[in-house]
Amino acid sequence: MGAAHSYSLSCFPTTTTTHCLYLNKSSKNPKSTNHFWGTIQPHLLFDCSHSSSSSALKIVAFNSRKVVDIENHADSAKTMIDFHSIDEELLEKMVYDALVWSSLHGLLAGDRTVQRSGKVPGVGMVHAPFALLPVAFPEVQWKLACEVAPIFNELVDRVSVDWEFLQDSLSSTKRVDDFTSRLLEIHSKTLEINKKQEIHLGLHRSDYMLDEQTKLLLQIELNTIASSFPGLSCLVSKLHRSLLKNYGELLGLDLKRVPENSAVSKFAEALALAWTEYNNPSAVVMVVVQPDERNMYDQHWLLATLKEKYDIATIRKTLAEIDKDGELLPDGTLLMSGQAIAIIYFRAGYAPTDYPSEVEWRARLLLEQSSAIKCPSISYHLAGTKKIQQELAKPNVLERFLENKEEIAKLRKCFAGLWSLDNSEIVTTAIEKPEHFVMKPQREGGGNNIYGHDVKEKLLRLQKEGTEDSAAYILMQRIFPSVSPAFLVRDGICHKEHAISELGVYSAYLRSKDKVIINDQCGYLMRTKVSSSDEGGVAAGFAVLDSIYLT
Amino acid sequence: MGAAHSYSLSCFPTTTTTHCLYLNKSSKNPKSTNHFWGTIQPHLLFDCSHSSSSSALKIVAFNSRKVVDIENHADSAKTMIDFHSIDEELLEKMVYDALVWSSLHGLLAGDRTVQRSGKVPGVGMVHAPFALLPVAFPEVQWKLACEVAPIFNELVDRVSVDWEFLQDSLSSTKRVDDFTSRLLEIHSKTLEINKKQEIHLGLHRSDYMLDEQTKLLLQIELNTIASSFPGLSCLVSKLHRSLLKNYGELLGLDLKRVPENSAVSKFAEALALAWTEYNNPSAVVMVVVQPDERNMYDQHWLLATLKEKYDIATIRKTLAEIDKDGELLPDGTLLMSGQAIAIIYFRAGYAPTDYPSEVEWRARLLLEQSSAIKCPSISYHLAGTKKIQQELAKPNVLERFLENKEEIAKLRKCFAGLWSLDNSEIVTTAIEKPEHFVMKPQREGGGNNIYGHDVKEKLLRLQKEGTEDSAAYILMQRIFPSVSPAFLVRDGICHKEHAISELGVYSAYLRSKDKVIINDQCGYLMRTKVSSSDEGGVAAGFAVLDSIYLT
Repeated sequence: MGAAHSYSLSCFPTTTTTHCLYLNKSSKNPKSTNHFWGTIQPHLLFDCSHSSSSSALKIVAFNSRKVVDIENHADSAKTMIDFHSIDEELLEKMVYDALVWSSLHGLLAGDRTVQRSGKVPGVGMVHAPFALLPVAFPEVQWKLACEVAPIFNELVDRVSVDWEFLQDSLSSTKRVDDFTSRLLEIHSKTLEINKKQEIHLGLHRSDYMLDEQTKLLLQIELNTIASSFPGLSCLVSKLHRSLLKNYGELLGLDLKRVPENSAVSKFAEALALAWTEYNNPSAVVMVVVQPDERNMYDQHWLLATLKEKYDIATIRKTLAEIDKDGELLPDGTLLMSGQAIAIIYFRAGYAPTDYPSEVEWRARLLLEQSSAIKCPSISYHLAGTKKIQQELAKPNVLERFLENKEEIAKLRKCFAGLWSLDNSEIVTTAIEKPEHFVMKPQREGGGNNIYGHDVKEKLLRLQKEGTEDSAAYILMQRIFPSVSPAFLVRDGICHKEHAISELGVYSAYLRSKDKVIINDQCGYLMRTKVSSSDEGGVAAGFAVLDSIYLT
Repeated sequence: MGAAHSYSLSCFPTTTTTHCLYLNKSSKNPKSTNHFWGTIQPHLLFDCSHSSSSSALKIVAFNSRKVVDIENHADSAKTMIDFHSIDEELLEKMVYDALVWSSLHGLLAGDRTVQRSGKVPGVGMVHAPFALLPVAFPEVQWKLACEVAPIFNELVDRVSVDWEFLQDSLSSTKRVDDFTSRLLEIHSKTLEINKKQEIHLGLHRSDYMLDEQTKLLLQIELNTIASSFPGLSCLVSKLHRSLLKNYGELLGLDLKRVPENSAVSKFAEALALAWTEYNNPSAVVMVVVQPDERNMYDQHWLLATLKEKYDIATIRKTLAEIDKDGELLPDGTLLMSGQAIAIIYFRAGYAPTDYPSEVEWRARLLLEQSSAIKCPSISYHLAGTKKIQQELAKPNVLERFLENKEEIAKLRKCFAGLWSLDNSEIVTTAIEKPEHFVMKPQREGGGNNIYGHDVKEKLLRLQKEGTEDSAAYILMQRIFPSVSPAFLVRDGICHKEHAISELGVYSAYLRSKDKVIINDQCGYLMRTKVSSSDEGGVAAGFAVLDSIYLT
């Protein structure tokens, strides 16, 4: 790394007091706060609420899959910036510049306090929440995350065609989780009609945290549907590079250490190549959207790039609109109000709340039955569920799908401890030491994880009731990432916080029959959020977009 | 022109009913309307509220300076687009695309319904109001407006050094208008200290309307201070080119007929060259701003370009802050909290409301006494007053400043009829036919003009009272521009309206001692507003940013 500085946590208070920098001194208690992350996009909330709350931590060392105690000293937390050295005036200038940059360059979100901001573009806009500076990240781990991306692509593709594996693995989940059950039902129906899907397009994002003690890059989850922020993440990297261009020398940071982010252009390229494969010049890309979408600018960046670079048009439809306006021709062509659709790109449909009625399920089935390219198909969608993640972590399962031993080893190295609740040994351990586990519900969407004391209570209740409900959860090793000081900017206000970060690596996979056309990593997303010492305080913190500084 | 279509006004109702296209059908009566133009930037409101209200119009033919009757047929209004041919679906698509484009590309303003939006960047943003399509404009008149720009630059510069002319011309105004009086006082003080200003920088905008009957390009005013929209005007041209790239063929319009707009880059270049002339590498550009500025993104585009292209830093200060933090060194160097200032770029200080107390006047004097480059200097500021405009329109006055007869003729051709109120013949005519005149108060800022019946009443009262107050006004020929249908988009809502437009041509002038370094036109601003048949309804309409389509 460049001229890095060591940082001592002692410069921050040990209480949870937040230090805010108000740009406008007269509005110290702004009433209009934007809860973009917390309430609008619940699935976007960090799945990384594993905080370091004491100086003597215990973690589950994933290699042995046993619980071990490891001393964790707060002063071992390293970051590149000596936050002491940034005075208030410089900070204020940087925050101001960053806010201006965000506004001029479209790093935006809809403001939830403005009613129409999720429907009408151009009204009720606010900068997307961001970290003022990139977060230090070891280059070796960064490279690893990029390297495994194509292997995960391959894995998802192979799992997706192993319909038996999918149905078997998810059979217990099916009984207790309505959502997974409905997805599997559609999956079965597509099996029945035996329609051969020839073109497979995946735009994934694999999310990781860096375990502080083991320095291991551990996968949190693999998103195979509606991976968000390919647009805005690129902008945050640009924002940070722009700030370092002006302030890097003062801060002792070199902008070249912030990797350029190509997520939006590579995703657009993948969509364009898939569109070409579909081979109907008059067909368009359809984005399946939520009726109220405050993260619309992230989506618009991708669609604008697709139009600008490849002259491919897009339409945006909700599942309800698709049910109303969609039509399937006998040859499988999907028409939307008469317009042929080449690709169905899902930015909705991943969470139970996206299906408030039968109308939406009917629409999902219609889409799945069409010959349009689904991004993702129902099998790609299912391959990304937590239950499948947990199944893949079992011994010898990866070998069912991959041949290359080196690649298998690389993937396995990224797996955190993952167990189903029928593993009674682990359940007993988790009841004894709940602070080392996270309980995750099967379904997508995030934000519903169980931590700490609640893990113990939930497990005890499930044991007592002895129902099948335990199949609705998996247990995961709780990862304790480094805690670093960070400046989190939201709603025009800069908060000095202790924070933890989560890295997402985007990847694209395109296969037409047996020909793999794209299998690539595509840039990254860094998200940083307040590290709360309160076990249950996950939702209380707020996550912001970030980028990485290679060390 | 390209494939133009004739347009018949009869397709629009003759009442003042507004036709709105709501993108979000559920919010047909949005409570949160943005009055960006009307109340936030009163000086930005069109000064072109000369509407065609009947089919038989009467105008003041400027050449003879006499009132003549000319038949004006509404159906003579030509525009390039047959608005019948645009169906609702296409229109909705274009509006949506335009709103997305505006958001991603920084065509923004602060939303007046959000308290902090004029202070903190990145919060409470809304797209700047815009016309969906460019307005037809004859190429010959466009070229003329560009050609006269350097001549007006030269004229302003020469008037500015003719201190006697300035003081004499404004002596009557001084007695009745406090604001002009204070400016002249500062002007006199700078004369006394006899400080030789060596570098002169003007960033002007000359505003015109095209008279429907005579087809003459008539100057409304020449802005020598705080010419707004160099940033956003460029974006609107880009927006229109982008829309025509996608929809031009459907509409029969060729994007090449929308002139590229270089206002922001040329203004930045002028500031950079002036900064180089000042020759202090550690000095910065100071922007004098209003405490609450919802048009801040327009300013930020200019400053971002200056930073990006020339690595020149800027600071933003209100007049009150300048009074507090400013310091003058014996050699004339201006320091702001210790930071040397190379250029003072005014985006405030043009209106009486910018000087609520003696503090602001003291700051203005301090600035004027410094050796920093003033953009504009107090003499440039005064040279742009309406009284000077009126004096320059008198016979033989232009000849005092310019030699080239051809150039003089060109400028004069752009002058509308302008008279002081001591011209009793014109006052009598104006009382008889007030609909052919506009009464304009001396001071800058716009929005205080008097029209129609109010002209008659005001003139009669002034005659009766016999005070000196009449020196506070000038009379101007009322210009009747073409009325064309337009789609005006504000607050995410598209309004189908009868509209009139005003062209502004930006120009830059930089002189160091006797060396003219820049004398150039720099792009343009088109503004379009609702043509109201209500004489007094000027403020009721709303103006939007537009671009031109050469015919």
